[in-house]
Amino acid sequence: MGRGENIMIIDIHGHYTTEPEPLQQFRQAQLRGESPSVATLSAKVSEDAVRQSVEENQLRVLRERGGDLMLFSPRASGMGHHESDPDIADRWAIASNEMVHRVSELFPAHFAPVAQLPQTPEGNLKGVLAELRRTVEELGFVGANLNPDPSGTWAGKPLTDPSWFPIYEAAEDLDVPLMVHVSTACNPNFHTLGAHYLNADTSVFMQLLPSDLFTRFPGLRLIIPHGGGAVPYHWGRYRGLAMRNGWQDPSELLRNVFFDTAVYHQPGYNLLLDVLPSSNVLFASEMLGAVRGADPETSVEWDDTLTYLKGSDRLPADWDAITHKNALRVYPRLAARIEGNRG
Amino acid sequence: MGRGENIMIIDIHGHYTTEPEPLQQFRQAQLRGESPSVATLSAKVSEDAVRQSVEENQLRVLRERGGDLMLFSPRASGMGHHESDPDIADRWAIASNEMVHRVSELFPAHFAPVAQLPQTPEGNLKGVLAELRRTVEELGFVGANLNPDPSGTWAGKPLTDPSWFPIYEAAEDLDVPLMVHVSTACNPNFHTLGAHYLNADTSVFMQLLPSDLFTRFPGLRLIIPHGGGAVPYHWGRYRGLAMRNGWQDPSELLRNVFFDTAVYHQPGYNLLLDVLPSSNVLFASEMLGAVRGADPETSVEWDDTLTYLKGSDRLPADWDAITHKNALRVYPRLAARIEGNRG
Repeated sequence: MGRGENIMIIDIHGHYTTEPEPLQQFRQAQLRGESPSVATLSAKVSEDAVRQSVEENQLRVLRERGGDLMLFSPRASGMGHHESDPDIADRWAIASNEMVHRVSELFPAHFAPVAQLPQTPEGNLKGVLAELRRTVEELGFVGANLNPDPSGTWAGKPLTDPSWFPIYEAAEDLDVPLMVHVSTACNPNFHTLGAHYLNADTSVFMQLLPSDLFTRFPGLRLIIPHGGGAVPYHWGRYRGLAMRNGWQDPSELLRNVFFDTAVYHQPGYNLLLDVLPSSNVLFASEMLGAVRGADPETSVEWDDTLTYLKGSDRLPADWDAITHKNALRVYPRLAARIEGNRG
Repeated sequence: MGRGENIMIIDIHGHYTTEPEPLQQFRQAQLRGESPSVATLSAKVSEDAVRQSVEENQLRVLRERGGDLMLFSPRASGMGHHESDPDIADRWAIASNEMVHRVSELFPAHFAPVAQLPQTPEGNLKGVLAELRRTVEELGFVGANLNPDPSGTWAGKPLTDPSWFPIYEAAEDLDVPLMVHVSTACNPNFHTLGAHYLNADTSVFMQLLPSDLFTRFPGLRLIIPHGGGAVPYHWGRYRGLAMRNGWQDPSELLRNVFFDTAVYHQPGYNLLLDVLPSSNVLFASEMLGAVRGADPETSVEWDDTLTYLKGSDRLPADWDAITHKNALRVYPRLAARIEGNRG
């Protein structure tokens, strides 16, 4: 890891938003009703194309900002779980995971793969469990993204519904955390990047608050991205609601629920660090994601969340927790992978 | 106003959540298919019952905390706009508005009424416009609550859709602001008080950002409650999204969009005041609302937002703006009403 574990910076939330063109062509063919083959796709995308797609983008930015390693998953808005055919969903997840896996094989010190699951509005539980096991056990993936709203219209059930439990059992068994991350909104009231993502983060936290999900699945770990949506900003509201309704205090959830730092200005970032214990905050940028470019007032790139972390007054112990120690604890397969790369 | 304009504290967001029992019985009768009469309801609720319902609750708390005047609207979660019959919606709004009007007539120095509109999933535009005009022109209401999701399932159109324009025309014409406030969620994924309210605030702000709504309606003023949902916490995200997509900067919206202070802990409250200019923040508690009781760690009642305002380091000029000057500017009929009460 270059500069040694103590100064390692792990970004737990990056997406392959610069994927080679043939991957999107594969998807378009699927949506036209064709059955494109993953093997043909793989042959069509050269090693150089994969290398170039990240060297000039995520890897360049990671290095420029002083980061070391990124957890890398397929483009979130492209997961397209609202398409209902399980076979199409399975092959789209396999194709997408293949691409992030290739990135991680080319740059094992800089990228660790996180899986897209072949969810559908009806669940496609068989496919989801198979792809989770395949990516983790056979390909060395360290986690997966779980979409709490595969329909894109919130037509499904809350994450506390028993229909989700087999996925939690598998995640516990494989010892991988799940990042709760929606895909494109299929409702014109919700802008995908500016509303749907944040609303999902808020809604899921609220689903968990009155539930006993983590009594049932004590080993389950969920990561809520985008700084937890509205949750840290309204932490007092959740504490008050919990007290009034006799639910667990929101702090009880922190044994199993973690938050990333994809918050794109210093005051918001400070709030996140002020409200949540540093044990539950994992450094992340979500780059290259919703925002690109820099704040003209500060010249800081919007998603340069390491600059915000440096701009806060975190103590050195918090710094280590937020930049890598929490990640290695929450993603034990990442820790093992890093050991393996070293050895 | 007792202590003179300079130290007046106006709470712009209070609900009649302690309404006399016959009002809920009226609603239950409606939902059973009966046609209860507003006149019978009015006769059934004595002046003493109205007086008592607020004297022991909102008015007591307002006084204890040092507040002077509250903008008072019917219970938000009870608006029930998902019921589709326009006639039922009309009469439910009339009955609900009658009750807050009676409170404001009994305590004109302490309560100014804000209307519930008889929205339905199909719009009920005729009824909405009639009730808005009736309450403002005949009864002295100073504003209204507009539900951006009357279906409760987000089945309708964004607030930027032309179908909403007649309401904006009327609000401009009457010179009343609209608080954007949803009612009960009709989707099990969204807890009404812990997710749906905040998601609506976030979603609506994002609907406005790429739109030219305020070029078309320069006199329209919208208030986003609950501290703006996730918006101030993610202000950098909105600035970055706007820049990337060529939309107006979010600050451009601040000519027409205002935020209340219903945020229930000091760090969140500080963030709101740090991120938004004080010209756009209006003091509010939303009491008696989502949370009741006090934080055991500080003994501060969760919704005692005046204590949080005092706990921030706002300058005296900001204090006046946030506690009453903004309210008198954004609600000109409130300013006129106060002058009238004085004269």
